[in-house]
Amino acid sequence: MTLQTASEEESTPHVHVNAAISVDGKLSTRERSQVAISGDGDFDRVDRLRAERDAVMVGVGTVLADDPRLTVKADRRRADRQAAGRPPNPARVVADSRAQTPPEAAVVNDAAETYLLVSEAAPETRRDRLRGAGATVLVAGETRVDLAGGLAKLTQAGIDRLLVEGGGEIIFSLFERELVQRLSVFVGSVVIGGREAPTLADGKGFDDTEAFPELSLTDIDRLDDGVVLSYDVDESAG
Amino acid sequence: MTLQTASEEESTPHVHVNAAISVDGKLSTRERSQVAISGDGDFDRVDRLRAERDAVMVGVGTVLADDPRLTVKADRRRADRQAAGRPPNPARVVADSRAQTPPEAAVVNDAAETYLLVSEAAPETRRDRLRGAGATVLVAGETRVDLAGGLAKLTQAGIDRLLVEGGGEIIFSLFERELVQRLSVFVGSVVIGGREAPTLADGKGFDDTEAFPELSLTDIDRLDDGVVLSYDVDESAG
Repeated sequence: MTLQTASEEESTPHVHVNAAISVDGKLSTRERSQVAISGDGDFDRVDRLRAERDAVMVGVGTVLADDPRLTVKADRRRADRQAAGRPPNPARVVADSRAQTPPEAAVVNDAAETYLLVSEAAPETRRDRLRGAGATVLVAGETRVDLAGGLAKLTQAGIDRLLVEGGGEIIFSLFERELVQRLSVFVGSVVIGGREAPTLADGKGFDDTEAFPELSLTDIDRLDDGVVLSYDVDESAG
Repeated sequence: MTLQTASEEESTPHVHVNAAISVDGKLSTRERSQVAISGDGDFDRVDRLRAERDAVMVGVGTVLADDPRLTVKADRRRADRQAAGRPPNPARVVADSRAQTPPEAAVVNDAAETYLLVSEAAPETRRDRLRGAGATVLVAGETRVDLAGGLAKLTQAGIDRLLVEGGGEIIFSLFERELVQRLSVFVGSVVIGGREAPTLADGKGFDDTEAFPELSLTDIDRLDDGVVLSYDVDESAG
C-alpha cells in the first residue's frame, strides 16, 4: 500500500458505515433522486444506530442532494440519551473539502452540534459563514479532506463512535484509508440500474484483489421486504 | 411505459438472471479484470443452474472481457443431461448487436450449440465468419438487438429455460424489457468500489420508483464467505 493510513499515534473513532442499497448496489437513481429503498423497519434500525453513536457523518454530496437533518427521530431515544447525560442528538459531521455546505442546510441547524471537515483550500469566507451558522470547522488536508487527520480531530473533540451514512464517494475514501470497522447494508428488493447511478462505494475503486478490504459477514437479518447484511472489516496487515 | 414489451403472441423463455457481486453491487473492477468474488460453493451452484437450463446467455461485453466457455463443469451433470436425452451442455447465447464475437471465442467452440442474437446492422461478413465457426445467427432488431424478438426466436429453437450470467448491460436491458422472471445474486464479502466499475444492472437505469421492477425476496442462503439472495420478479401490470 502506498496510501498513507492513519498513524498509530493518532486515534480515530470507531467507524460504522451504514446505507440502504438496491440489489445492484445503487444508493439512488442516476438523477440522484431520493428513492425509498427501505421501509419503516429500516428507518427505525438506522434511528437506533444514530442514537447509539456520538456523531453521524455524510459527504457534502449527500448534503447537497438530500439536505438531511441526521437527527434521532424517536422521542424516547433522545430522552434516553439525555438521561445518560448526553445531548439529545449525536453530532453531525460533513466531509466537505471546499466548504460547500450551505449555511442554511438542515445539517447546520441547532438540533445538534455540526462539524465540517474541510481542506486548507476551502475559502475563508465560506468557513466564516458556516461558523456564523453555528458549525465547527476542522481543517485537515491541503486540497481534499485528509480523512485520517479529520477523524483524529473528531476523536480529540470527544467523538468515539461514528456512523457514516454515505454517499458512495466518502464511503469509498474511508475504505481506501482503512478507516472502517463495521459495515451494514439494507439490500432492498429492487433493481435501480444505471451505469451512472451512485453506488455504495464509488471513487476510483480498487484495482485488484490485494487491495480489497476484507470483510466478514456476521449477520443476516430479514427486514421489511429486504435483508440487512452486516460485516466486520478485518484489520489489515498494515 | 412507452417501451415495447414482449407481445403476448410471442412466447419467450423463462429467464433466470444470476451473477456474483461485491457488497457494493460490482461485477468486477473498473478495469473489468475478472475477480474471484465467490468461491467453490458458488461455482457449483452456478454449474447446477447451467445444467438445469436449455441455454446460458451473456452479453458480448462479457465474451470480449472474459472469454467464457459457459459449459457445465461437473461430469455427472453432463452425463445426467445425456441420460435424459439432452445435449451434455446447454446452448450458449450471446447478445451481440454488431456480431463482434470473435469466431475463435471459447463460446463458439464445439462443446455446445451457440446462438448469436444480432441486429440487422451486424456486417454480413462477420455473420458469415461466425456461421462458419459453427454458430447459429438469429437477427432481431435494426441497430441493437431486439431482446424480446430475439428471445422469441430462441423459444422457437426449443429453448424454454434460459440462464443469463451478465454483464450489467444485458441484465439491465432484460429488466427494462420486462423479460426476467427470476434473479439470484451471490453477494461476496468484499468491497470493490469505483464509479466506473460495472455493476449488476448498468445501462441507462430506471428514473423513478414507478419504473423499478418489483422483486420478492424468496431465499437467503449463506454460501462460501457470502450469501445468495434469490428473488422472483413480479409480473408487471402491463
